[in-house]
Amino acid sequence: MTVYIDFEPVGRRGQCPAGASLLDCARQLGVDLVNLCGGTGSCGRCKVQILAGQVSEPAANEAKLLNPQELATGYRLACRTIPLGDCKVRVPPESLTTPQRTQVEGIETPVSPEPPVTSFTVKLTVPSLDDLRADDERLLAALADQHVAAATIDLEAQRQISPQMREGDWSVRVAVREHEIVAVLPASRRPLGLAIDLGTTKIAGYLMDLETGRTLASRGMMNLQIAYGEDVIARLAFAKGSPTHAAQMQDLVVGALNEIAAELCAAVGAEPAASTSDIVEAVVVGNTAMHHLFLRLPVDQLAHAPYLPAVSSALNVKARDVGLRIAPGGYVHLLPNLAGYVGADHVAMLLATGMNHATGVVLALDIGTNTEVCLANHGRLTSLSCASGPAFEGAHIRHGMRAANGAIEHLRIVDNRVEIQTIGGAPPAGLCGSGILDALAQLYQHGVVDARGRMGDHPRVRGDGAGREFVLVTEGERLDVPLSPGGGNERSAITFTQGDVRELQLAKGAMRTGIQVLLEIHNLSAAHIDQVIIAGAFGTYIDVQSAIAIGMLPPLPLDRFRQVGNAAGMGAKLALISRSKRTEAQALAEQVGYVELAAIPGFSRTFAQAMYLGPDLFPNPA
Amino acid sequence: MTVYIDFEPVGRRGQCPAGASLLDCARQLGVDLVNLCGGTGSCGRCKVQILAGQVSEPAANEAKLLNPQELATGYRLACRTIPLGDCKVRVPPESLTTPQRTQVEGIETPVSPEPPVTSFTVKLTVPSLDDLRADDERLLAALADQHVAAATIDLEAQRQISPQMREGDWSVRVAVREHEIVAVLPASRRPLGLAIDLGTTKIAGYLMDLETGRTLASRGMMNLQIAYGEDVIARLAFAKGSPTHAAQMQDLVVGALNEIAAELCAAVGAEPAASTSDIVEAVVVGNTAMHHLFLRLPVDQLAHAPYLPAVSSALNVKARDVGLRIAPGGYVHLLPNLAGYVGADHVAMLLATGMNHATGVVLALDIGTNTEVCLANHGRLTSLSCASGPAFEGAHIRHGMRAANGAIEHLRIVDNRVEIQTIGGAPPAGLCGSGILDALAQLYQHGVVDARGRMGDHPRVRGDGAGREFVLVTEGERLDVPLSPGGGNERSAITFTQGDVRELQLAKGAMRTGIQVLLEIHNLSAAHIDQVIIAGAFGTYIDVQSAIAIGMLPPLPLDRFRQVGNAAGMGAKLALISRSKRTEAQALAEQVGYVELAAIPGFSRTFAQAMYLGPDLFPNPA
Repeated sequence: MTVYIDFEPVGRRGQCPAGASLLDCARQLGVDLVNLCGGTGSCGRCKVQILAGQVSEPAANEAKLLNPQELATGYRLACRTIPLGDCKVRVPPESLTTPQRTQVEGIETPVSPEPPVTSFTVKLTVPSLDDLRADDERLLAALADQHVAAATIDLEAQRQISPQMREGDWSVRVAVREHEIVAVLPASRRPLGLAIDLGTTKIAGYLMDLETGRTLASRGMMNLQIAYGEDVIARLAFAKGSPTHAAQMQDLVVGALNEIAAELCAAVGAEPAASTSDIVEAVVVGNTAMHHLFLRLPVDQLAHAPYLPAVSSALNVKARDVGLRIAPGGYVHLLPNLAGYVGADHVAMLLATGMNHATGVVLALDIGTNTEVCLANHGRLTSLSCASGPAFEGAHIRHGMRAANGAIEHLRIVDNRVEIQTIGGAPPAGLCGSGILDALAQLYQHGVVDARGRMGDHPRVRGDGAGREFVLVTEGERLDVPLSPGGGNERSAITFTQGDVRELQLAKGAMRTGIQVLLEIHNLSAAHIDQVIIAGAFGTYIDVQSAIAIGMLPPLPLDRFRQVGNAAGMGAKLALISRSKRTEAQALAEQVGYVELAAIPGFSRTFAQAMYLGPDLFPNPA
Repeated sequence: MTVYIDFEPVGRRGQCPAGASLLDCARQLGVDLVNLCGGTGSCGRCKVQILAGQVSEPAANEAKLLNPQELATGYRLACRTIPLGDCKVRVPPESLTTPQRTQVEGIETPVSPEPPVTSFTVKLTVPSLDDLRADDERLLAALADQHVAAATIDLEAQRQISPQMREGDWSVRVAVREHEIVAVLPASRRPLGLAIDLGTTKIAGYLMDLETGRTLASRGMMNLQIAYGEDVIARLAFAKGSPTHAAQMQDLVVGALNEIAAELCAAVGAEPAASTSDIVEAVVVGNTAMHHLFLRLPVDQLAHAPYLPAVSSALNVKARDVGLRIAPGGYVHLLPNLAGYVGADHVAMLLATGMNHATGVVLALDIGTNTEVCLANHGRLTSLSCASGPAFEGAHIRHGMRAANGAIEHLRIVDNRVEIQTIGGAPPAGLCGSGILDALAQLYQHGVVDARGRMGDHPRVRGDGAGREFVLVTEGERLDVPLSPGGGNERSAITFTQGDVRELQLAKGAMRTGIQVLLEIHNLSAAHIDQVIIAGAFGTYIDVQSAIAIGMLPPLPLDRFRQVGNAAGMGAKLALISRSKRTEAQALAEQVGYVELAAIPGFSRTFAQAMYLGPDLFPNPA
C-alpha cells in the first residue's frame, strides 16, 4: 500500500509507503526538512501545512508547539503526521534546510511581462537594380511595415544588419527598445534578459525569457571585491585612492558578471558570443556603493559625511559602456538609489514586496552588513540604514562561517546537550548566521547569558573573562575531523564566546534601533505593525523566534512575519521583465522619505537600550 | 602720395604708392594674384572687381581679355589698372594662387547658429544634513530651475558632476543636447564643435564656437589609409578581408581625427584632455566608403554590385563608441548617405550650395577620384557618381604631383614658349591638377593634340608612340635643381606625355558623361543650365576655360560658373552649428533621386563620345 504525496512549492511528488510520517515521506522524495530532535516531535521545526488529503489527528505535543491559528489552518509537524491517503502538502520556506530554500527563490512572482525590449521576425525584400535602398533603410521599412516603427538603430546593431540579413536569407530577428533597434539576430533566436543582484558579499544572476517572464537559469558567485575589504567603507576608501583602483574595482565586478552571463547562456544553450549575444537587456541592483563601483562613478563624496550618491536617478547605460558582454547595443538598467546607504537594492526589495501598495503598517528589513529598514504606514514610506556589521555573516565570530556544508544552521539547548542541524547533514564545522542567532537566543533563554550580555555559569561554559565560551560541539564530538598528518594540531571544539555575544549585541542593537526610530517618526509602537517582511539571504534562514527572543525583532505574533528570500534579486527580475515595474520603482524612490539615523536626536540613548538582550526592550506605551 | 586699397574677401588692406598697378599693390599687401605673363596684360589671369573708388580707364587688351558683362560689372586686369584714389577691390577665388585660396575657405556662410548642444552655467546649493539630495538630482533641479529641464545624463558626464561641482565651488557649466546632459565642465569653459571633411585623400578639420558659429581654427592632414590603396575600391577590399583589417582602417582615420582635434585645441588654447574636452559635438562627412570605414560598418555589400550602403540614414554616435577623443559624452553626427558611391559628403555639398532652394537649372560637381554630380531642375534633384579616377590629383600622370610648393598650377603656351605659374613661386617640380588641366587644354587649343587625343608635331614635342611627350620645362630651364652628389642622375625635363593625354580623356570623359546623362534624364540640354557649381579642392583651382576647352565642362558663359571650394567641409560646418541644417540635410537625402550610371541605357555610347576633346561634344538640339 502506498500513498501519493505532493510537496509544494518545491514540486517534489511521488509514492510513499502507507504509515510513514510526512517527515519520512519528505526524506524519501528528496525534500530536506529542518529537524533538530531527530523526529521525536520535540523541536517543532518541521512544520508543514496540509493543503488537501486526510492525515492523522494532531498529537499532544503538536498542540504545544503549534499555535491555535496554525492548527486551524492545517499546520502540522511532519514528524508526527501520518498521511491517511494522497496528500498535497505545502512546505513553508523556514522548514526547509538552507540548500533547498535557495531553490525556492526561483519561484516566479506573478507579473505580466511587459518587457522593455520586444523582438520581431522581419522578412526583407531582396535588393536589385530597381531597389537600391541601403540595408538600414530596407530593414526599417520592413519593420515598420510588418510590426512597429523604430526611430534609431544602435551602432553595434547597425554592424549586424548587413551580415545577418544575408546569412539569414533575408530574414532576421530585431530587438527593439523604446524605438531603438538594440540588436539584430538570426531569425531563430529569442531575446533573453539578465537580472543581477550585486551584493557586497555575493552576486546572484538570473537568466530570463523576456517574453514569457520565466526564469531559465540562475547562478551565484562571490563578489571578488572582498579582497579589498569586507565592507563597503574599505572598498570605497580603496577605490577613491586612484582612477586605477576604481577601474580595478569595476573590473572585478564586471568580470564576475560576464562569467555569470556566460555560464547562464551555457546552461540553456543560448548564444554566449558578445557581438551576437541573445541577452539584450540587463538589470543590476546593488547598494549605492556597489552601484557606484560597478559604474565607476565618483565615490569620494560617498565615503564622507553626508555620504552623498553621485547618482540617485534610475539609469539606462549601454552594456558596452561598462564592459558587460551581452548584446553590445543592449542596455543595463539600474534602479534609483535613495541615499548613500540606502541604494537600488532597497528599492528593488520594496518593489518585490509591493509594500507601497500595502494597507496598514508594514516593516521591511533587508539584513546584511548594512541593514536597510523601511516602514510603510498606510502608504507613507520611510527608510533608513543601520550599520549592523558583518557578525551575522559569520565575520568576527570565533567559529563563524558561511552557509556552506557543515555549517550549523539551527541548534537548541536541551538540558546539558546541544542539538544541532548542519547544512547538508555534514559533520559540524562552524556556525552560519542563523546558527549564530539561535546560539545567542538559546543561551539567553537558558539563562547562560543575561540581559546585559554577560555569560554566566553552565556545565558547558569554560574559560574566564574575554576567553569565556560556551561549548556547542566538544572536541570529542568531532572525531570525524581528520587530524593533520604532520601533527601539532588538535580537534578543536566549536564554541560560542563572550566576544561573540558582544559583537551580536552591537549588530542586533543597530537593527532594533533602526526599527525603533522609524516607529517613533511615525508615532507608532511595535504593536501597530501588521506585517514584518524579512529579506536577504540571512533573513531567509533565521528562526524568527530566536530573533524575537534576543530583541532583534519586535515581539509580535509569528504569523505577522514573512521571510521572502532574495527580495532585491526578485525586484531586479521584476524590473527586467516589466516596464511598469520600472516606472513604479521610480515612483517609489520619489515617495520614500529617507532618514539619516545619526542625525536623529536621542539616537545614542535608543541604541544603548537596544543592545540589551530580551524581547521587551521598548514596551508599547500604555 | 599714397592710396588706401582694401582687398576683399581676403581682408588685406593698407597704403600703397600712388601710380602703382593693382597687381603691385596686391603684392605689397601680401595678396598673391595668378599671373602667368609677368604683368604684361597678355594672360588675363589677374582679374579683380572694383567695388568702390576711381581707377584708370580699361586698356585695349583688357577689352579683349574681359567679356562685356565683366567690363560692365567692374572687372579689370589688376596688372593694367592704376588706382586714382582709395579703392575697395574684390579678388575672385580663381585669381588667387593656391595657398591663398585655401585661406578663403575660412569665410563663414551666413547662417544663424542653432547649435545642437547648448551650454549653461549652473549655480548649485551646498549639501547639508537638511539637503541630502544626490549630486545628479541637485544638478538637474538647479538646471531646470535656472535654465532648462534635462531628462538624462550621459554616464561619462555623470562621472564629472561630483568632482566638477566641488572643484568649481558649486558652479559648473553644463552642455545639453536634446534633453541629455552630454558634458559637465568648469563654469569658465565655452563648448566647441569639430567639423570634419573626411576625404579619400585629405582630411580637413574645423574647430568652431558652437554659440557664435565662428570658425576658430582649421587643420588639414593626409588620410593615412592611402597606404592601403589610393582609391576606395582598394581600401574596401582590404577592410573586408578581416575584422582586424577593418579595425586598422578605422584606427588610421580615428587617429588622424584625434590628432587634428588635439592640434585645433592647442591652436586656440582649449582643453585637449579627452575626459574634460571643450569639444562637445562633432560632424563628420565623407563619401560612403570613408563613412563606413570610419564607423567600422560592414563593407562587403558596398564593394560588390549593386554597391549597397549598410547605412544611409543620418546617425548620432557617441564619440567614445568610435574612439574619438572629444568630450566622451558628446556625439558625432553623420549626415545621410545617398548610395554606395554618393555619400554624406555629397549631401554636405548640396547643403552648402543651397541648390535645393535654387530656382532654374543648377549643376553641381564635386570633382575627385569619384566625381559626384547633381542636377537641380527647378527643385527636382538628381545625383550620380562617375569614376573619374585620380588623374586630376596627379596620380598616373608622368610629372603629376600634389598641390605643393613648386607645382605648376597654371600654364599657357605662347608660340614656342611655355609660361608657368608655380605654387609659392618656387622652381617648377611637376604639375598639380589645375596645371595638368591647363596643359591638356593648351595642347588641344594649339593643335598639338587633336580631338581624338593624338599628339602631333611641335617644336617642343619629342619621342614616338607611347613615349611621345611635350616638354613643358626643359632640362636647361631646371638649372636650379641640385644634382645628386653621387652623380648618375640628370636634371630631367618636366613633360606632358601621350599617356597623360589618354588618362585625362578617361577622367574628363567620365565627368562629361555624368553631366550628359543627368541632362538627358531631365530632358534638358547644356544651354538650359543657369549655374554650374564646382566644388572640391581640384575644382577650386582649375581654370574653367581650360575645362570647357577640352569638353570636361559644357560650353557656357563663364559667369554661370561658381567655384566654391571645399563645399563638403562647409556643409559639415553648417550641420555642426545648425539643427535646421541637419533637418534640411535629411530632407535633401530623401528628395534627391539617385541614378546608377552603369544601369543607364546608352551609357557606353555617351562615354565614348565624351572622351573626345573639344568644347562642343554634345551640341544643343536645334
